[in-house]
Amino acid sequence: MKNTDWLDAIKWDEKGLIPAIAQDAHTREILMLAWINREALLETLACGNAVYWSRSRGKLWRKGEESGHVQKIVDIRLDCDNDALVYLVEQTGLACHTGRRSCFFQQLKEDGGEPYWEAVEPVLKNPSEIYR
Amino acid sequence: MKNTDWLDAIKWDEKGLIPAIAQDAHTREILMLAWINREALLETLACGNAVYWSRSRGKLWRKGEESGHVQKIVDIRLDCDNDALVYLVEQTGLACHTGRRSCFFQQLKEDGGEPYWEAVEPVLKNPSEIYR
Repeated sequence: MKNTDWLDAIKWDEKGLIPAIAQDAHTREILMLAWINREALLETLACGNAVYWSRSRGKLWRKGEESGHVQKIVDIRLDCDNDALVYLVEQTGLACHTGRRSCFFQQLKEDGGEPYWEAVEPVLKNPSEIYR
Repeated sequence: MKNTDWLDAIKWDEKGLIPAIAQDAHTREILMLAWINREALLETLACGNAVYWSRSRGKLWRKGEESGHVQKIVDIRLDCDNDALVYLVEQTGLACHTGRRSCFFQQLKEDGGEPYWEAVEPVLKNPSEIYR
């Protein structure tokens, strides 16, 4: 029987989830934040590519399954509270479904004291070409 | 009356929270993940240093208030789903209450096929010296 101490050490929330941050292992750019459960983490370890839990679809989300934009795991880190992970990854293609490298492309700006969000990162690929 | 479109654009969860990732603006190291609500984000903007919502204490958490380890905001990014933020910061001192630079100091390792977590980042300051 497998030792699950390392999984039990994680403080899964009331839905059995924790956030996982995907960071480019080379550029250190933060690519995305998604959610994982035990199954997603086990599957990530088993296949060597990032697997998340899609809260909207209620099922495992093998990142890149449709787009080919897989994230090869280089390192996995857990924080001091045991309730958040970092996946250090080698990103094939683009992390974001909008065709941008990172999902964090909206920057907080101000105009006359009024804050607003502006998309500041370029679309590198047309989303319609990513998902056929 | 202030325009709150930028705040309303954020998809706060059922508790009125979203995760915020603090990243070192210079080294791009991920320092920590914490939670914010509207009040914490407004206060972050008002004072220019990272403010979070402490879920355990149920109140605003002005990072560095006790330790002096403040995080000066350089840039704020929102992701494509509008439900996660990145604070790009200039970190004074150490982000982690354990006396390490980053909270993500536990690395997933394997020994004979058995995964385990190992603390791999040095303690740079004794926690008892950080919090007096």
